[in-house]
Amino acid sequence: MTTAWALGLGCDRGTPVATLMQAVQEALAQAGGTLGQVQAVASIDLKADEAGLQQLAQLYGWNIRFYPAQVLARVPVPNPSETVRKYTGTPSVSEAAALLAGGGDTPLPASALRVEKHKRRGADGRNATVSVAALAQEGAAASDTYFSDVARDALYRIMAARRDMRHFMPGASVAPEVLARIVQAAYLGPSVGLMQPWHLIRITRPQLRAALTELVDAERLKTGEALQASDGRREEFLALKVEGLRECAELLAVVLPPDDGTVFGRRTMPRDMALVSLGCAMQNLWLAARAENLGLGWVSLFDPTAVGELLQLPAGAKALGLLCLGPVPAFYDRPMLSALGWRQPRALDELISENSWSTTT
Amino acid sequence: MTTAWALGLGCDRGTPVATLMQAVQEALAQAGGTLGQVQAVASIDLKADEAGLQQLAQLYGWNIRFYPAQVLARVPVPNPSETVRKYTGTPSVSEAAALLAGGGDTPLPASALRVEKHKRRGADGRNATVSVAALAQEGAAASDTYFSDVARDALYRIMAARRDMRHFMPGASVAPEVLARIVQAAYLGPSVGLMQPWHLIRITRPQLRAALTELVDAERLKTGEALQASDGRREEFLALKVEGLRECAELLAVVLPPDDGTVFGRRTMPRDMALVSLGCAMQNLWLAARAENLGLGWVSLFDPTAVGELLQLPAGAKALGLLCLGPVPAFYDRPMLSALGWRQPRALDELISENSWSTTT
Repeated sequence: MTTAWALGLGCDRGTPVATLMQAVQEALAQAGGTLGQVQAVASIDLKADEAGLQQLAQLYGWNIRFYPAQVLARVPVPNPSETVRKYTGTPSVSEAAALLAGGGDTPLPASALRVEKHKRRGADGRNATVSVAALAQEGAAASDTYFSDVARDALYRIMAARRDMRHFMPGASVAPEVLARIVQAAYLGPSVGLMQPWHLIRITRPQLRAALTELVDAERLKTGEALQASDGRREEFLALKVEGLRECAELLAVVLPPDDGTVFGRRTMPRDMALVSLGCAMQNLWLAARAENLGLGWVSLFDPTAVGELLQLPAGAKALGLLCLGPVPAFYDRPMLSALGWRQPRALDELISENSWSTTT
Repeated sequence: MTTAWALGLGCDRGTPVATLMQAVQEALAQAGGTLGQVQAVASIDLKADEAGLQQLAQLYGWNIRFYPAQVLARVPVPNPSETVRKYTGTPSVSEAAALLAGGGDTPLPASALRVEKHKRRGADGRNATVSVAALAQEGAAASDTYFSDVARDALYRIMAARRDMRHFMPGASVAPEVLARIVQAAYLGPSVGLMQPWHLIRITRPQLRAALTELVDAERLKTGEALQASDGRREEFLALKVEGLRECAELLAVVLPPDDGTVFGRRTMPRDMALVSLGCAMQNLWLAARAENLGLGWVSLFDPTAVGELLQLPAGAKALGLLCLGPVPAFYDRPMLSALGWRQPRALDELISENSWSTTT
């Protein structure tokens, strides 16, 4: 688990970069952190042209944010100073800047400060002050975890790059520890009443994979017929690659277990809530696969009864997906069905309305 | 979008840190990168005790990885050298190290190198060599995005810290741009046949929120009765806080739209596949909320017909959740139902088996 820090910096006019470097390294050492864990750095806009800060930014590769005094003045801090206010217009520079830099849209709470104000006086008498705020503490309880915009960007990039994959690298494999992390991600999914209505079956027997592939081939043809009957698109459909069961490194079946009778949160819609819970957990698995730079394709082209027999499912259990997982030659830039012109996604604003189904309220 | 780099370093014995710093800064400048974007740095284990590299690591806060020659030798590189092999046992140090450092379990492809070998000769005649590999290129196509372990760790930390929340900060709000990002995350969810079977309704009318809250209160009592009948746990259930509809900053209803007749991927199980697709999209939304440091609680304690009437849903549409979203006083360390002893999650290994439902094959 990465530990991440935000720094707030203050200094006298003309403070040499050496004093600033020393102050930063001492403050980080007090917090138990390292330079590589610094994710955000800020100061006051009065110091935007300060040579020492500019050199520090270049040396450490930092993009220092400079906040106006009136923005800093609004942040609750442990050690406000009337003297500082007189000269700068805010009772705190470094503490407030650290909390703002770490918090993004809203400042971190003052309790995030691990080093409130570390002051270093240089040989020339000029002072540098450093405050250190914790973004994510090693081994911290989940309740304490505050995510920076670095973590948020990573999540959004992973979501944007996730695809339903059908092209895999034949003969490739997934390292056991990677597969374990991906399965663990599914396990971290939410579920109604904590029922965890999901079960994964890892297919390792080649004959079983071949038999499942045959079932998918059969359903592919039947889907082609159904599409022909509904809108004449059989040939177009059959030309698409719709699954990667033969080539993928790992094949997992996802199964809805027999209903365990959970009442909490699902008295009025028991099956629906089990199914959406399964979907939530599988999306965790899907994002984890993408973050591991592996493709995942959810294949639902099969007769669930026939798949259930092959997997020896108990009564009441139902196979809902054959998940193809593994290294891919390249990820699609867009959803494959969109890229190949099968169907285009709706615009985002069609998917949300206010106070009622229709957008006019 | 963050641009991220991996560096591979090589140097002569006794190369001063100043030469290394200069080589690194020049190579990064050639790649169009900055020091703050460096996510991984590596070299060969022969150099693990090299003073200049140790000083560089301290100065920049890097944790330099040192790979054995035989590991480096297996990485395909653009510029292998027999001279280098003679002295080190691998035909490439810096190129191979950059590709390994960036790739984690499997090296990056050679095409990831943005600077193959930048050599800087210091005043004392000693050489430093730097290779720069791109982990994620600004504006890159999704197909090119390679996620480092920094991004992967962020995802897993967000998943581990996500909770189903029922306690919110009353009177708080969610900034419009934050809400927009969270809704956008749902939109990035996968769906069977690209049908996007989800619709969100943002509840902004106080009377509507009050009416929905009444419906949830009524179902809470009915669930209490049902739990009493099944296992006598009504009082225990009624003592739990099961929803935050009154306090949450934003309330969103998630609705399954009327079936649009999509055949692709759901001929054999049309409703199930729509529901799991909705679940996948909502998990994106849930993770996005957590990454924005906001709580989200999925409330399913209601009569879907009554909620559908309040939201003026068309025939065939069904409300599946009332999503409470907003700032929270603190995130639960564990799922609330587990922390309060209502139910404990199963062990991870119960959720996966091999080749059939039972774990014995």
